[in-house]
Amino acid sequence: MSDFPKSDRNRVRRLPDRGRYDKATIYPIVDAALLCHVGMVDAGQPIVIPTLHARRDDEILLHGASTSRLLRYAASGAPLCITVSHVDGLVLARSVFHHSVNYRSAVLFGQGRLIEEAEEKMEALAAFTEKLIPGRWDDARKPNAVELKATSVVAVTIESASAKIRTGPPKDDEEDYALDVWAGVLPIQQYVGELQADPAARQEAPVPDYLRNFRF
Amino acid sequence: MSDFPKSDRNRVRRLPDRGRYDKATIYPIVDAALLCHVGMVDAGQPIVIPTLHARRDDEILLHGASTSRLLRYAASGAPLCITVSHVDGLVLARSVFHHSVNYRSAVLFGQGRLIEEAEEKMEALAAFTEKLIPGRWDDARKPNAVELKATSVVAVTIESASAKIRTGPPKDDEEDYALDVWAGVLPIQQYVGELQADPAARQEAPVPDYLRNFRF
Repeated sequence: MSDFPKSDRNRVRRLPDRGRYDKATIYPIVDAALLCHVGMVDAGQPIVIPTLHARRDDEILLHGASTSRLLRYAASGAPLCITVSHVDGLVLARSVFHHSVNYRSAVLFGQGRLIEEAEEKMEALAAFTEKLIPGRWDDARKPNAVELKATSVVAVTIESASAKIRTGPPKDDEEDYALDVWAGVLPIQQYVGELQADPAARQEAPVPDYLRNFRF
Repeated sequence: MSDFPKSDRNRVRRLPDRGRYDKATIYPIVDAALLCHVGMVDAGQPIVIPTLHARRDDEILLHGASTSRLLRYAASGAPLCITVSHVDGLVLARSVFHHSVNYRSAVLFGQGRLIEEAEEKMEALAAFTEKLIPGRWDDARKPNAVELKATSVVAVTIESASAKIRTGPPKDDEEDYALDVWAGVLPIQQYVGELQADPAARQEAPVPDYLRNFRF
């Protein structure tokens, strides 16, 4: 996989050592995130909206109600920023100043286009569902014509991107290592709790393997 | 606590039933988030950057290197959007169309001002540290004059805001309840893993109670 060229748009300015421009680093960060934050501009006012996403090669797929402002904006071809972030731990240094977080983030820039062709739209929705819960698409009832019409899917071509990553223990000033202050990392992870069956279910459907074994 | 008036800026357009405008709902969502996503605009291009935040009454505090683009932008008084999101679960309906996520999100609008007065800056950094890890401020070495100068703290007055929340089981179309498809919620939570002591530590500092008992 290739790199995104560094430009004014995607260059990591602060702590450039943490910046990465290769797809092999950026895309797994994007794929591991449940949701992204999409930046729009309305008469000079930035607006940041969280939404689900999926990636298909060099495109980010967004979906939602056809009437949604986010989808209409994304479909308009206006410049977008799509950001994903993971916090992996709190980094506790001996000094307040060197406290930090371990994180992986990716900032993507691009423009969207509405997926209008029915087959491509269905494929994109399948990609969405399978990204969220692999195995679900073949199990659940697929969208019908009315539902398909009520849903917009926008493909955003990733024109430029960068990632920023911090890992590892704190780094303190030399003289602070003498302080009697606990230092290290509090790791943070997401986990899936016990499945909660729909109380409105009218029959006891078995829990499929793809849900029983679901992990991030 | 009061409400934010509904306006074109903060009105929840899609699924307005999920929209909330009261501080008593919005602020706990903000406070429970480790990080926020800040929206900026650069020559028409939206830019969304993740960063840590803390809240002090009707203000959001942002901090970072004095040289950081985000902090300089936030301090400039330009309109900001600050968004926080929590995913609480994947909602599995019998139909693909009714799949959803349980979430809590808050979108805040406001303008920032640089905190320049040394005492207010120190207090703001204390608020930051205590928000992240209650008990840490009194334990770690506090910022010295050089570190204070290298750090910017911006207070963003929350002028307008809304929250959007989904909870509970899936809602399917009446006829789909007959399908033999497992439906329900996969809850998602964050948790703190085992403390990882700094391998570079030169002495075995005891783990303080506020870290031993740390929970989100």
